[in-house]
Amino acid sequence: MKLFSSVHDVQDIKQLVASALALKASPYAHSDLGKNKTLGLVFMNPSLRTRLSTQKAALNLGMNVMVMNMDKEGWALETQDGVIMNGTTVEHIREAAAVMGEYCDILGLRSFPKLQNRDEDYNEEFFNKFVKFCGVPVVSLESATRHPLQSLADLVTITETWKPIPNPSQREGSSKSLNLAEGETPLPLGEAGRGLPKVVLAWAPHIKPLPQAVPNSFAEWMCKAQAEGMLDFTIAQPEGFELEESFTPGAKISHNLDEAIADADYVYVKNWSSYKEYGKLLDFPEGWMMNNKKLSLTNNAKVMHCLPVRRDLELASEILDGPNSLVIHEAGNRLWAAQAVLKAMLEEL
Amino acid sequence: MKLFSSVHDVQDIKQLVASALALKASPYAHSDLGKNKTLGLVFMNPSLRTRLSTQKAALNLGMNVMVMNMDKEGWALETQDGVIMNGTTVEHIREAAAVMGEYCDILGLRSFPKLQNRDEDYNEEFFNKFVKFCGVPVVSLESATRHPLQSLADLVTITETWKPIPNPSQREGSSKSLNLAEGETPLPLGEAGRGLPKVVLAWAPHIKPLPQAVPNSFAEWMCKAQAEGMLDFTIAQPEGFELEESFTPGAKISHNLDEAIADADYVYVKNWSSYKEYGKLLDFPEGWMMNNKKLSLTNNAKVMHCLPVRRDLELASEILDGPNSLVIHEAGNRLWAAQAVLKAMLEEL
Amino acid sequence: MKLFSSVHDVQDIKQLVASALALKASPYAHSDLGKNKTLGLVFMNPSLRTRLSTQKAALNLGMNVMVMNMDKEGWALETQDGVIMNGTTVEHIREAAAVMGEYCDILGLRSFPKLQNRDEDYNEEFFNKFVKFCGVPVVSLESATRHPLQSLADLVTITETWKPIPNPSQREGSSKSLNLAEGETPLPLGEAGRGLPKVVLAWAPHIKPLPQAVPNSFAEWMCKAQAEGMLDFTIAQPEGFELEESFTPGAKISHNLDEAIADADYVYVKNWSSYKEYGKLLDFPEGWMMNNKKLSLTNNAKVMHCLPVRRDLELASEILDGPNSLVIHEAGNRLWAAQAVLKAMLEEL
Repeated sequence: MKLFSSVHDVQDIKQLVASALALKASPYAHSDLGKNKTLGLVFMNPSLRTRLSTQKAALNLGMNVMVMNMDKEGWALETQDGVIMNGTTVEHIREAAAVMGEYCDILGLRSFPKLQNRDEDYNEEFFNKFVKFCGVPVVSLESATRHPLQSLADLVTITETWKPIPNPSQREGSSKSLNLAEGETPLPLGEAGRGLPKVVLAWAPHIKPLPQAVPNSFAEWMCKAQAEGMLDFTIAQPEGFELEESFTPGAKISHNLDEAIADADYVYVKNWSSYKEYGKLLDFPEGWMMNNKKLSLTNNAKVMHCLPVRRDLELASEILDGPNSLVIHEAGNRLWAAQAVLKAMLEEL
Repeated sequence: MKLFSSVHDVQDIKQLVASALALKASPYAHSDLGKNKTLGLVFMNPSLRTRLSTQKAALNLGMNVMVMNMDKEGWALETQDGVIMNGTTVEHIREAAAVMGEYCDILGLRSFPKLQNRDEDYNEEFFNKFVKFCGVPVVSLESATRHPLQSLADLVTITETWKPIPNPSQREGSSKSLNLAEGETPLPLGEAGRGLPKVVLAWAPHIKPLPQAVPNSFAEWMCKAQAEGMLDFTIAQPEGFELEESFTPGAKISHNLDEAIADADYVYVKNWSSYKEYGKLLDFPEGWMMNNKKLSLTNNAKVMHCLPVRRDLELASEILDGPNSLVIHEAGNRLWAAQAVLKAMLEEL
Repeated sequence: MKLFSSVHDVQDIKQLVASALALKASPYAHSDLGKNKTLGLVFMNPSLRTRLSTQKAALNLGMNVMVMNMDKEGWALETQDGVIMNGTTVEHIREAAAVMGEYCDILGLRSFPKLQNRDEDYNEEFFNKFVKFCGVPVVSLESATRHPLQSLADLVTITETWKPIPNPSQREGSSKSLNLAEGETPLPLGEAGRGLPKVVLAWAPHIKPLPQAVPNSFAEWMCKAQAEGMLDFTIAQPEGFELEESFTPGAKISHNLDEAIADADYVYVKNWSSYKEYGKLLDFPEGWMMNNKKLSLTNNAKVMHCLPVRRDLELASEILDGPNSLVIHEAGNRLWAAQAVLKAMLEEL
């Protein structure tokens, strides 16, 4: 793999999920693969999970890691071409990216959208220029419109926690999806007899206009998984909060949360701001925060969130602190998602 | 060891001091112990000595280290339960701590007090919630009320520099406490014939209200050492600057600096703000800065300070630049204190 | 080597250049040399190239690296002696440097000038005090008046890219200066038959008063190389922008850019502010930005710049994006320059 920026960069998502789960079972099985290889992690924005999980993933593969908080430790970057740089930007992304490529074998980049100009954000100008000019394989650590390491971890989490084949006699140990023997990984979703989980992406309230990167990306991966017969996917949001259509092919769309989550097996809670009224904080209706009452409408659904989460604004504490929450488990799987991607890149260096 | 937050977490302080000195003699003797183990260092506040010495300690043990400047690189954290997070905090410590525990085998945390609400600070809400929710062993890198790695390094320094057994024939090489043969470590304080050093914690002036963490912790460790027959401990401070009593069991307390330091072997200089008038900058009397004139009252005492130190405000330059200062030596021992604690934790992972 | 702060610290610049090129040919040939040795990188100012290339260099040599953003992660430092520290500075460089020396085997320091007091900057007070008090070998990562790792990388780049011996029969493979066989390094500049490149340091416009560190240092290294018969060196700048004389012994000085770059083989573009009118932003004449028209006056010169560069203010995009630019190649060589210096230091530890 030379680029990991979206689900479209992945040839076989089932295989990538299986690779992540195999690495979870044997984290150090490839600890020589990254010898003398260096991962550079470039942050234009804050990061906790991505920062730590990707570092750890690289260390597990024997790589060296260098972290660059470009927004704080480096120089203000220009991204536009053809401008005379006589303002506040000190270095052009053409040079900055190329230089980082000189020192690193693989680069990771986090660059949030500005939420001011939709075209600029959705063209992924910053991310794409970085990829173009750095000259080495790049992993997205969340770009303006996508967060694919998160989405891969989410699919890994669903695969891992979904109920196994109903008839245990079909496969020894199949009932211990979270407690597999060493080296053993769950069967892929959609395997004969395993049944399909109903997964719902549920919009949630917030006090700020947030990017669409996580929901875009989650939708894109779930739609792909649905197309491959791995699950059933629905998106619920208030009117006016529809995601850009190219991210949601085949998804069922609902404006009624209660109807959408009926019989759901997984509810993925996330706020995002309007794509149509870009960058604005729209009014939204009551009743869109997941809590135990709403949970009772589901098929005892597992509840997911990419974190950070604002408690009792986006998602009720009673869920986060209860038995149905997968949020920490899901964050833990960020490590294996990152390690699977880095492993695939190292194998092609 | 599963937690290192105070002297109360240590079963045998003599043994821990001996372990630190053994590591100083043979830094790489356990360089495989930390293989494939990751230390996460989480800073809510600035750090120089703690940051570098703890990293180095972990590297000496073969660990990987990930540093997280949570105040700058991550998300603003909420610590209160039961609040709707519709303000400035973006992530709750419940999630943040749990997530960091997913990626790290041991965590270190620095979290200063706010000096606004004494109960909140002395309940160690932030530190204790972090410990509770992260799910892995935790080393304090200085909390609201204690700085135990500093105190352990201080006790190591006193043990190491205190005059050895008077009759050299009793033990070959006993006179070279700072110049031991490789693998050789000083005898514990309080061993027959070695004599007891008089240690004085001496309050010093400052222009800002500082936390009580370092003096609390130093007092706690010295009181414990006194109880174990290792030394003799006195605290000197102006009236109104008494430490909270539970940190000073058995300590002699004085409001007269000159009397307190008479015949002292070690003077530990440190400012702290009032516990009673919490968070305030009280007026203080003249004559509380250690200088050479005051030093002449002592038994040619060694002078210690945890650093950073404001020269000629807290402590006279003539002492810092003179032969009685142990401050750099003491800072150097932070490494071995950290390594001893990490080693003890790794052995129980 | 115990100190790398200027060309004067180097016994044999040809040998050091050769060492850098040998390391480029075999990056991991000395990967055990740094085992159990720690490099501390201390930044008082932003850094991209220096930060990453020096880290990578140390990792290639098997060292551990600890990065300290002293301006953000540590304490405000006092550098003056004899002051009562009752202001904004929290720690004196005497203690800070000494403490860092306790944890590190080699230290790197970046400390820009303040451009307010010329004597203070040119006395290198901060850098020299750090060296004096830290007690371990120090590599300059750019000080107030010099940037020697950059200059070494520049000389490496010129050596590597300069046309080889005219008669290829003299030496097999001599025509592939950028494409040498593994383990093969270019002949030193000035070797019989190789000819001497004409190198011009060309002042460029800017909107801010910048330090003289890069041009001072480049001039110092080129003058030394010229004295050793390796190249021919000219400096071009508008009147009033002359560098301090001790940095330019033997250099030809011109106030006419077009005349200076006639027949040049290398043009090193860089802005600097006036040494005479220290810290001020002087008016400057038109026509000092290198572009393709000016390039046509040269001997098809390679164009260099230390980066970051402000496009179309300091240097035309058409050059940066064209075939004559060496800026990325030059930045890449920062790695080998740093590795050669660290290797020389490790060998004497």
